Amino acid sequence: MRAVELIERKRDGGRLSADELAFLVRGYTAGEVPDYQMAAFCMAVVWRGMDARETADLTAAMVATGERLDLRRFGRVVDKHSTGGVGDKTTLVVAPLVAACGLPVAKMSGRGLGFSGGTLDKLESISGYRVDLTTREFVAQLERIGIVLTGQTADLAPADGLIYALRDTTGTVPSIPLIASSIMSKKIAAGAHAVVLDVKVGRGAFMKDLATARALARAMVAIGQAHGLAVTCELTDMDQPLGRAVGNALEVAEAIATLRGEGPADLITLTRLAGAEMLLRGRAARDRRAAERRIDRALSDGSGLAKLRELVAAQGGDVRMVDDPALLPKAPHVETLRAARTAHVASIAADEVGIASVRLGAGREKKGDPVDHRTGIVLHAKVGDRVERGAPFAEVHHAGRPGDAAAIEMIRAAFRWRATKTAPRRLVLGRIAS
Amino acid sequence: MRAVELIERKRDGGRLSADELAFLVRGYTAGEVPDYQMAAFCMAVVWRGMDARETADLTAAMVATGERLDLRRFGRVVDKHSTGGVGDKTTLVVAPLVAACGLPVAKMSGRGLGFSGGTLDKLESISGYRVDLTTREFVAQLERIGIVLTGQTADLAPADGLIYALRDTTGTVPSIPLIASSIMSKKIAAGAHAVVLDVKVGRGAFMKDLATARALARAMVAIGQAHGLAVTCELTDMDQPLGRAVGNALEVAEAIATLRGEGPADLITLTRLAGAEMLLRGRAARDRRAAERRIDRALSDGSGLAKLRELVAAQGGDVRMVDDPALLPKAPHVETLRAARTAHVASIAADEVGIASVRLGAGREKKGDPVDHRTGIVLHAKVGDRVERGAPFAEVHHAGRPGDAAAIEMIRAAFRWRATKTAPRRLVLGRIAS
Repeated sequence: MRAVELIERKRDGGRLSADELAFLVRGYTAGEVPDYQMAAFCMAVVWRGMDARETADLTAAMVATGERLDLRRFGRVVDKHSTGGVGDKTTLVVAPLVAACGLPVAKMSGRGLGFSGGTLDKLESISGYRVDLTTREFVAQLERIGIVLTGQTADLAPADGLIYALRDTTGTVPSIPLIASSIMSKKIAAGAHAVVLDVKVGRGAFMKDLATARALARAMVAIGQAHGLAVTCELTDMDQPLGRAVGNALEVAEAIATLRGEGPADLITLTRLAGAEMLLRGRAARDRRAAERRIDRALSDGSGLAKLRELVAAQGGDVRMVDDPALLPKAPHVETLRAARTAHVASIAADEVGIASVRLGAGREKKGDPVDHRTGIVLHAKVGDRVERGAPFAEVHHAGRPGDAAAIEMIRAAFRWRATKTAPRRLVLGRIAS
Repeated sequence: MRAVELIERKRDGGRLSADELAFLVRGYTAGEVPDYQMAAFCMAVVWRGMDARETADLTAAMVATGERLDLRRFGRVVDKHSTGGVGDKTTLVVAPLVAACGLPVAKMSGRGLGFSGGTLDKLESISGYRVDLTTREFVAQLERIGIVLTGQTADLAPADGLIYALRDTTGTVPSIPLIASSIMSKKIAAGAHAVVLDVKVGRGAFMKDLATARALARAMVAIGQAHGLAVTCELTDMDQPLGRAVGNALEVAEAIATLRGEGPADLITLTRLAGAEMLLRGRAARDRRAAERRIDRALSDGSGLAKLRELVAAQGGDVRMVDDPALLPKAPHVETLRAARTAHVASIAADEVGIASVRLGAGREKKGDPVDHRTGIVLHAKVGDRVERGAPFAEVHHAGRPGDAAAIEMIRAAFRWRATKTAPRRLVLGRIAS
């Protein structure tokens, strides 16, 4: 088999067999297929796409380059994943809630990149929290407390990490089969039996329109079917940021508030949606109503918050920060943005808020950059809200660095106003499930 | 400037500026832009193409990575190039003829790859012939005898050599802007003032159809215009091999025979066409009729042959082989293929004959392979010819290696027969010139 012939076939719109895809993926991981051939292949895939069979085979090939966790002794283990957005701290809320309902949650998260935040960065706002558990620690903690939230270990689907790094530098990120196989290979390798995916749609998400988001959702459901994994994709709005907080410590504080029953409406809606779906997919609830009731109870009786505390303790984090979020790292400066005139919020450009948060230090422009856990934005108004002249619509938590003024102006400009009342945005846009 | 952003722009169908293309090409040549980024970029160009301005700028960027010969003191220097085919030894005939007419011919040729032969391999059939002249030797010989036929020196357009090698292994060869800029960068760097290009069309050529060949011709003419280089593209048929000989020494022998006035009709036609055009483009003839008369005279009075002899002597070759082609290397075995019944030749698949010649050792499957100068095919019949039952239609010169029987059968199968007379193929299919 020659790599160049496989590249040529894909370039010309042809299909590759499971063996051929395994040859490329295994060869690349072993250093036998050079990076320039894999880069050309990825660009050919961006161009020509892959059918469902190829996408499932590519996923299998990536899984096969590493270990695959066997979590069957835990019964059904459910994973949860978001394709990423601005202010999306749902995992921090929903994982402890579901675990509090007795269903094991074993989740490997990622870091933020570009305007999208990452769960690991958020968790590291809590002093001492470890995101580098070994596979052994991962399994032991799942056994002990029924919840793990850590980074991906290198021994799971190593091809995915290598190919993703290559795609990141070669303009080959935006491809549905490549995105879907990257996400799903990690879920399959991590041993989940079901996965609830939140596919974000809108200007603050990777998928800008519903049609593309649907295509990604269908691709992931199909991969799940080929690998015996139950998959639900919820398609949700990411045109404005989710909740009110954007930035690491600020989002952790909002997640804790939500677990105390004081969360913003949109975050609570997505939490109930994903949490109930996880219980159903994990066969831990009879029907949707029963599942939602259990999530609501875990929200109201404090058992979700207690589970978060247990998680933080187990992974070496400072639980005092969970008990008193005022102890979380704080930016030295807070600039309040006030409305120039009384008006309704017509839109809040999530991408611009996300980029501004990166400029404030809360995210990273490129891999390996450090993040400032303290900085970010708190929105005091969301789409549809009326703001009185002179009232605050946002506050910016910044470190007092040279570029901050520009970032603050960017946040101000991200708001569009309208004199008349606008309807709040629809949050849940669709659902595709196996 | 970041390479990944330029890749993304091309991927999304955008255009790159001259500075951006120079950044990529210069950076790649200097080892600053890694090969995986250049590979992804090339695939994006295969996908999205380039407009005429970009193609000219890419060419300029490749020229700028090396030296550019200044041949102005020779008056107008004309180059000649064929996009490659099976049995195409036109350069060996036309270059000495034009030089014999007093117009300097300075040509850097390439080696064969795939089913396409290369002038350098053919010339090396002549013992001692050097194809590795230095730039200094190149210019000195042009001064002394008005003709040079050698390989490309590394100091001319080094980016082209690097990018071509990368394209060869990444499935990014078939792209009109990449092919056109590769060919033209070498011509511009080598100091030609005009170039006559033979764009081959058909199954034995890189361009399979007339529309693609026309697009390539237009791209090369446009590059020439942007760089002050007069360009003529003749579009000629390469569905059946050109002339009768395919294989290195066999083609040299046919070229010598042609310079003696004993060449096959199609080769003579292309020789007159290209030769007259070179004289016109070099302003060494008043009009086409005068130009053709001069070429005819150089063919009939032996001055073209004498110039070939002078060239071979100057580059260290054994001139006895020019005087007596029977001294050229000879294959130990000749298998004659005879017609099973009386019929007319309907077609001869040039690609299959070319592949068979590679199998016989006359060409190379991959760069760096050695070639056997002795082996090849002589066609006794061409399309439209009638062959009597039992009469020879081809002879195969082989070395008696294991795969030869299969190659011989491939040549037999390359011939299609028909009971009734078929018209000979049209040889000259079009012309695009600046």
